[in-house]
Amino acid sequence: MSTELIEESIPDVGPRSVGLVSTQSAILFAPPHELTLANSRRLGPITVAYETYGTLSPQRDNAIFVCHALTGDAHAAGYRSKEDLAARKAGWWDGFIGPGKGLDTDKYFVICANALGGCQGTTGPSSICPETGEPWGPDFPVIQIPDIVDVHAELVRSLGIERLLAVVGGSLGGMQVLEWAARYPERLAAAVVLASCPRMSAQGIAFNAVGRSAIFNDPNFNDGRYYRDSGPRAGLALARMVAHITYLSEESIERKFGRKLQDVEALAYDLIKETEFQVESYLNYQGRRFVDRFDANSYLYLTKAMDYYDLAQSYGSIENAFAASQARFLFVSYDSDWLYPTRQSKEVVGALISAGKHVSFIELHSAKGHDTFLIEVEQLEALARPFLERTLEVLRRPAAS
Amino acid sequence: MSTELIEESIPDVGPRSVGLVSTQSAILFAPPHELTLANSRRLGPITVAYETYGTLSPQRDNAIFVCHALTGDAHAAGYRSKEDLAARKAGWWDGFIGPGKGLDTDKYFVICANALGGCQGTTGPSSICPETGEPWGPDFPVIQIPDIVDVHAELVRSLGIERLLAVVGGSLGGMQVLEWAARYPERLAAAVVLASCPRMSAQGIAFNAVGRSAIFNDPNFNDGRYYRDSGPRAGLALARMVAHITYLSEESIERKFGRKLQDVEALAYDLIKETEFQVESYLNYQGRRFVDRFDANSYLYLTKAMDYYDLAQSYGSIENAFAASQARFLFVSYDSDWLYPTRQSKEVVGALISAGKHVSFIELHSAKGHDTFLIEVEQLEALARPFLERTLEVLRRPAAS
Repeated sequence: MSTELIEESIPDVGPRSVGLVSTQSAILFAPPHELTLANSRRLGPITVAYETYGTLSPQRDNAIFVCHALTGDAHAAGYRSKEDLAARKAGWWDGFIGPGKGLDTDKYFVICANALGGCQGTTGPSSICPETGEPWGPDFPVIQIPDIVDVHAELVRSLGIERLLAVVGGSLGGMQVLEWAARYPERLAAAVVLASCPRMSAQGIAFNAVGRSAIFNDPNFNDGRYYRDSGPRAGLALARMVAHITYLSEESIERKFGRKLQDVEALAYDLIKETEFQVESYLNYQGRRFVDRFDANSYLYLTKAMDYYDLAQSYGSIENAFAASQARFLFVSYDSDWLYPTRQSKEVVGALISAGKHVSFIELHSAKGHDTFLIEVEQLEALARPFLERTLEVLRRPAAS
Repeated sequence: MSTELIEESIPDVGPRSVGLVSTQSAILFAPPHELTLANSRRLGPITVAYETYGTLSPQRDNAIFVCHALTGDAHAAGYRSKEDLAARKAGWWDGFIGPGKGLDTDKYFVICANALGGCQGTTGPSSICPETGEPWGPDFPVIQIPDIVDVHAELVRSLGIERLLAVVGGSLGGMQVLEWAARYPERLAAAVVLASCPRMSAQGIAFNAVGRSAIFNDPNFNDGRYYRDSGPRAGLALARMVAHITYLSEESIERKFGRKLQDVEALAYDLIKETEFQVESYLNYQGRRFVDRFDANSYLYLTKAMDYYDLAQSYGSIENAFAASQARFLFVSYDSDWLYPTRQSKEVVGALISAGKHVSFIELHSAKGHDTFLIEVEQLEALARPFLERTLEVLRRPAAS
């Protein structure tokens, strides 16, 4: 046995890793119990891909649900295979989820699931439509953030968890956290909202619209019915390029690339070769890499879900949205995040304070822009750990004390 | 005669308009006197479209040259036709140029010319190549900002003006002003640089690269040889859409559009119809309108010229670039301009101060972002008028005094 282990020479996962993980799958909303979507259409069965890390307490009171952002998936922490482990290719929030980390898997049972409309194992436009036996494509129903949350809430219930310790997420994930707190006030003790907003700004809609136009313009888009062919790869890559710029701060992109040239001694004066500057090469690479893992229709559906989101409009006001909530809220924004500026977090925080809710808020300094919540996990850890510990303490305190 | 006038019922041009104007044309650098470009290729003859407003003084010392931005042209003020006048379709900087305005045509002789590489009358990739009798397309030589300035400097000389009172411009126009001051120190008494920079930021290059990719992705681009067909209209429109977002501040786009819906009562849940939100409709309109007046190859060449621009690299340092300059400098930046942030103006201003030059600088407050210099002309007028008057005064003062 020991010889075998040595021969396989598995790299050490490190003391703070959840190690090897596997993505699981649940089938929910099977007919005749289809989910009624926000737009009144019914959808089911719905497959949900999810992962869990840590151990559910006997009281089932230590579960934390993680909502991923636009292009994330269920694989938030650890390694899916030995190959991934060898290549140190960990889940998208591995720095924040693990033993002793921000979401401490020694203490908490962490769940992350792919969003409805996505393309990483949860039902979406690239899934097979049961009626036709073909991918849904543009016939997939339009989804909204409440639909994404409904599916995840059902998943959590199917895992035997009536109340979550916390729901945590950034960006589009943060919108889901807000919707969780509004829609299921009795089902979460805390809400952690990072770099997010209660409704997309006009500028945010504008950038999303540009990305969608890039996909629509692609001659291989074929009105969304492209699954027999390569699909709108160039258009999706372009959508990713423009979005990626908005995820970085002006300062970080300047520091990282400046005017450094890629693989050339000097400007080549070649208009067609779009990689003269490193920043061009980097964006091209980000675009190309993205199309290998993401579906263009999912990009359309999920960016539309973002654009449609308007918490105050849905509930009359932000105060109304959280009228029944007893959750403890933690909001974090970043001073260099120009896509989801601090003002947007403040709007929700102000409403919660006015409504007499428990709410903590901090604007953190960072040079890294919107993506900071994915990258600078140390400062998040310092906030999240005591906040979650205190929440669990309050939760477990006898009602009389 | 009077009856005729009444019948024609020409609208009053107003007391501060230059009135009806006509675009003129000069042919420069005719062989064997071709212009040697920055990349060592030779180009000629070069046609230059230009307009002038006001009257050149007998001393020929009151001429101001206006450098336009990326998509501008020679038509900076007044009306090109009675139809334009009736429709109030004035030149792009009509608010700033005219009798009693910022560039006061009662006092100054204002010249504006289309840039080399453009598509509004000056030689560019859509012009006919004399050797082939076909449009240049991608065979047009790569141009840089010094080339644009060389052509304009020759135009000014051909108009009999040895020294300009001032060169004025914003954005890409501001880069040209910097280059004028560096390249022709003896030929301008003042330089007015608005919302500009001494080199493109990595973020600026990134957005330009996205725009160019949109054009390259268009199936009608045909490697730039599209003049017999409709050309990459969708790609060029998309490039304009993304650029347009960067010209506006987050605040102004939010105030103007917010989440207002276009022509619909409520969200139509129609992914393909990209005009549910007014901001989408607005961007689509801006894109469509742009392709009717602009050439995609010009967009490629001119954004590349912007990206290549690096004053410090060209001259060793910014101080060096202006070592021989005796010009009086005026820099204006805007606090909501995130594409050309104040820091970039300050870098040049600091270098000029260190070099003991005469330099004034102000960051103006505006909610309108980068485009402010085109829109909020009142505050510019209040700065430019005394600055130019004083410059003329200094210029006309006997050397002994």
